[in-house]
Amino acid sequence: MPLTPEQQAEIAAQQAQTAPTRRATVPALEEILYTALPVLDHGFVRVVDYMGDDGAVVQAARVSYGRGTRRLREDAGLIRYLMRHRHTTPFEMCEIKYHVKLPIFVARQWIRHRTANVNEYSARYSVLDREFYIPTPAELASQSASNHQGRGTELGAAEAARVLEILKADSGQAYDHYEEMLNERADGGIVDPGRQGVARELARMNLPLNTYTQWYWKIDLLNLLHFLSLRADAHAQYEIRVYAEAMLETVRRWVPETYAAFLDYRLKGAELSAQAVDVLCRRLKGEAVTQETSGLSAREWRELAERFEL
Amino acid sequence: MPLTPEQQAEIAAQQAQTAPTRRATVPALEEILYTALPVLDHGFVRVVDYMGDDGAVVQAARVSYGRGTRRLREDAGLIRYLMRHRHTTPFEMCEIKYHVKLPIFVARQWIRHRTANVNEYSARYSVLDREFYIPTPAELASQSASNHQGRGTELGAAEAARVLEILKADSGQAYDHYEEMLNERADGGIVDPGRQGVARELARMNLPLNTYTQWYWKIDLLNLLHFLSLRADAHAQYEIRVYAEAMLETVRRWVPETYAAFLDYRLKGAELSAQAVDVLCRRLKGEAVTQETSGLSAREWRELAERFEL
Amino acid sequence: MPLTPEQQAEIAAQQAQTAPTRRATVPALEEILYTALPVLDHGFVRVVDYMGDDGAVVQAARVSYGRGTRRLREDAGLIRYLMRHRHTTPFEMCEIKYHVKLPIFVARQWIRHRTANVNEYSARYSVLDREFYIPTPAELASQSASNHQGRGTELGAAEAARVLEILKADSGQAYDHYEEMLNERADGGIVDPGRQGVARELARMNLPLNTYTQWYWKIDLLNLLHFLSLRADAHAQYEIRVYAEAMLETVRRWVPETYAAFLDYRLKGAELSAQAVDVLCRRLKGEAVTQETSGLSAREWRELAERFEL
Amino acid sequence: MPLTPEQQAEIAAQQAQTAPTRRATVPALEEILYTALPVLDHGFVRVVDYMGDDGAVVQAARVSYGRGTRRLREDAGLIRYLMRHRHTTPFEMCEIKYHVKLPIFVARQWIRHRTANVNEYSARYSVLDREFYIPTPAELASQSASNHQGRGTELGAAEAARVLEILKADSGQAYDHYEEMLNERADGGIVDPGRQGVARELARMNLPLNTYTQWYWKIDLLNLLHFLSLRADAHAQYEIRVYAEAMLETVRRWVPETYAAFLDYRLKGAELSAQAVDVLCRRLKGEAVTQETSGLSAREWRELAERFEL
Repeated sequence: MPLTPEQQAEIAAQQAQTAPTRRATVPALEEILYTALPVLDHGFVRVVDYMGDDGAVVQAARVSYGRGTRRLREDAGLIRYLMRHRHTTPFEMCEIKYHVKLPIFVARQWIRHRTANVNEYSARYSVLDREFYIPTPAELASQSASNHQGRGTELGAAEAARVLEILKADSGQAYDHYEEMLNERADGGIVDPGRQGVARELARMNLPLNTYTQWYWKIDLLNLLHFLSLRADAHAQYEIRVYAEAMLETVRRWVPETYAAFLDYRLKGAELSAQAVDVLCRRLKGEAVTQETSGLSAREWRELAERFEL
Repeated sequence: MPLTPEQQAEIAAQQAQTAPTRRATVPALEEILYTALPVLDHGFVRVVDYMGDDGAVVQAARVSYGRGTRRLREDAGLIRYLMRHRHTTPFEMCEIKYHVKLPIFVARQWIRHRTANVNEYSARYSVLDREFYIPTPAELASQSASNHQGRGTELGAAEAARVLEILKADSGQAYDHYEEMLNERADGGIVDPGRQGVARELARMNLPLNTYTQWYWKIDLLNLLHFLSLRADAHAQYEIRVYAEAMLETVRRWVPETYAAFLDYRLKGAELSAQAVDVLCRRLKGEAVTQETSGLSAREWRELAERFEL
Repeated sequence: MPLTPEQQAEIAAQQAQTAPTRRATVPALEEILYTALPVLDHGFVRVVDYMGDDGAVVQAARVSYGRGTRRLREDAGLIRYLMRHRHTTPFEMCEIKYHVKLPIFVARQWIRHRTANVNEYSARYSVLDREFYIPTPAELASQSASNHQGRGTELGAAEAARVLEILKADSGQAYDHYEEMLNERADGGIVDPGRQGVARELARMNLPLNTYTQWYWKIDLLNLLHFLSLRADAHAQYEIRVYAEAMLETVRRWVPETYAAFLDYRLKGAELSAQAVDVLCRRLKGEAVTQETSGLSAREWRELAERFEL
Repeated sequence: MPLTPEQQAEIAAQQAQTAPTRRATVPALEEILYTALPVLDHGFVRVVDYMGDDGAVVQAARVSYGRGTRRLREDAGLIRYLMRHRHTTPFEMCEIKYHVKLPIFVARQWIRHRTANVNEYSARYSVLDREFYIPTPAELASQSASNHQGRGTELGAAEAARVLEILKADSGQAYDHYEEMLNERADGGIVDPGRQGVARELARMNLPLNTYTQWYWKIDLLNLLHFLSLRADAHAQYEIRVYAEAMLETVRRWVPETYAAFLDYRLKGAELSAQAVDVLCRRLKGEAVTQETSGLSAREWRELAERFEL
């Protein structure tokens, strides 16, 4: 249960307020503004603010005095042209802000995307909640044999059960000790008046990497799409991919034309090496190219063959 | 006259549209949204979009679920605390977008601020207007004797008149030749059907640095304040300072608490070297420190003496 | 003639100095260190410092204690893997610094690449030289009919001659007036002791965009490759492309394995949309797809057909 | 003991290699190049590469053809001028690369400095070592009463002993379980052939925030000084401050003139608000200003009084 009744009430209060604005607004995004979209067992993503829409991309590309938009079809065409030719700057003209709750090991991958603004809940200043990410059994898998940094086949039931037992017990114990060292409960109460309690910035070091943290994260549309192209990809770790998937849906609501172009030219497109282009050219002319005569490594050949159904 | 009737109509049309939003809105800024604030002889700055308000700074600093604001006084206190202790990230949570028309030599200084998004009018794609910055006589000054990169005393009337004559004549001639080379007028008409006209990306190189260009420029509040602290400073070139001053006024409307803290802790504050601190300490104790015994250079001493009325 | 004898002597003096270092060194790059590689009529690019080599990419990817390199083939394989899978951060571990002399309109395109460090010659502080970019007749072309921001067919001889006449005369006159307004010659002499001369920051505005400027420009290898992929591309304006081509050659000397991977996976590779992948799949299966049945625009179809010799 | 004999041998091998270079070299930094400077119980910082020296700052500020340096005193004066007037770009022309071993909770603070390049040891790809930060008893303190995010008085002996007991036991148990879940020892051996072992990217989530990680971290001199001004400050958490202090010493060796100016104008200087300037002016004139009549908050008054010995 990610949200307390108090938090839900705060969100509802914000959703109930509306004001008139002369700025571009996006009703489909306003609809879910502030709503916590659940991710993993205790996490969420929620849009808390945005600037601009598809029209802002067009407006910046045309450096216009007014809205800058023309007929819908022309605008969509321009957006597709910009996406295709990597005219990137107009997509920087839209901005979005999320509030995210996520496990610390996910936060550590996420923060590597530097072109964003972030304010994280401070464990020097405040006490973290007793919340830990515990995977579902279906998510527990062995190290992949082919991908040195991914996961492979699902664990057997007994081994999965043991892993979950460890994660739950160690998390719980770490948090018990965190509270004991702080000499303070999450509600602010003192545990033992005879002790001083250790500073928060020290006690936190006992917590495991599956502890949940949260932050405000703000980014422009261009860099968001870059983040999503990497993190919604099949090679991304499952625990960050599910956040990217929830955010993709917010992008679809926010800037539908840009979203469609992004899918066509990035997410579902293909990047080919010079050698791969050569292989396809030869195949199209009827030459019976094999991996041996292709100049490609076994892995590159396999991926090309799969994608182009060779 | 910076705006054509068509441009004014486009702006008025945008100002006439309002829509309800659940986002934070700032009435004092909405009031001037899209309005072109005149700067120099043909330039302007206008706010075309914004995200967040003083409350968004507070909300991010507290990583809250709702608006995050408390009593006005507490919020103002937090903003002052953040500004004073250079807790910079909460100020990145607000974003603003300007449409600016400015001479190219000003644009070249401005663009050095890299943490911003920009889309400039393309002179490869379009024909530039016949508009040039011509200073007023009062702005014409000689090279400063003390500041190697600034201006000093005002020019005499005859010399000023000659400078203006040169600037006007050369600008006009450069533009005449620009049109001739393009074989195209600003309205798109062809000058001489017997000629091909040279490509726009080539013809533009004949234009002088006082030609006006324009761009959309988007930046977060933290980096905007940094820009303003440098460009609204007395050492900044006059022609960029007047833009900074117009923008300061938009910041005052947008985030009044942040603006007040920025003035107190940055714009009107002072940075002292270790040696300057030492001088003040000794003076406060009644020691008769002079430049010779201060450890300061003549220039540093003069500036310190002026500021602290020694 | 881009360099004075004094400048050549300064460069030669720097080249004559060597010192022992424990850092990674690249003899092929040391060979041309400080040498001005000529570009356009008065411009140049010269490497003035560098950090790291191909081994530094490998070392960072492996987070190793020592050099981190293994057999040459293994290292090359890792670099190709990183390039292919866009594991970008190891390529940020190499850094290079250039001294560049270039026309201002080229500098204005170049500076749009924000992830770099730059120190430009200051025309507020110093007087600019009397040097202007004048294209060769072969470079003078009309506006492209198909590409709205490029150039098309070469100008006829008479029109080209007139364009060159204009560019030369206007540049010369602008510089004469620049000197007159400054009341100062490039050698520092005063023209007329009876006048004050206008400040440099003002006088410069009369100079055209083909005036040469210069800067120190420092960038990491990843962002350099990104710059080169855009600016060495056929769609880039000729006047910046020639700089990119000169720099590509310095990259080949500096990090040969990275350079080779960059050519294969970026510069000579292809990016396909989802629709283009679909077209190729259908063609490979023997289906007679045409533009009409492809889902591609006429232009996208033409480019795909050209690249894959359909 | 932070380094194994194999690691020490790798470092020694690198230190033994020298090659001639035409680049600027800094003997005082070369002396400690690659050496691991110990920090905390298992951490270290070591310089693994650098570009430029004090002369490179001067060279960029002057945009010179050769070394650009003049008499030592003139160069030092220019560096002080640049530092004082926040002419920041010349300091970006030097670059340094560190290899750092540090606890994860320190890495999480450190990574917030975004203008740097980083490659971290991947716990998706490799198994982390059994190494945890355990504070010394002297470092264990209670939450500060005055500073909401710092530490106050030292813990009593009994409470300190209990904290250390918890940290050691929980770290050890978490690592035992990490190995059990991985079914793999740090040396690569399999623990139980009857089990699959869970993927590394999952098992790592059981490890606490005091686990050591390591990375390559590269940054320009300007941004390094900014990092150090924040992290070598008394308000920074002790566990990151000791890294900053070790790095300050490398800066002193690398760019002594810049280091001296940084100390005078930043680290040991003072920033005053408009109100504080006013207080000092009044005091210097002999007015008996008190906190009540100062316009300063109690805390600001206290800090001003301390610094200026009022």
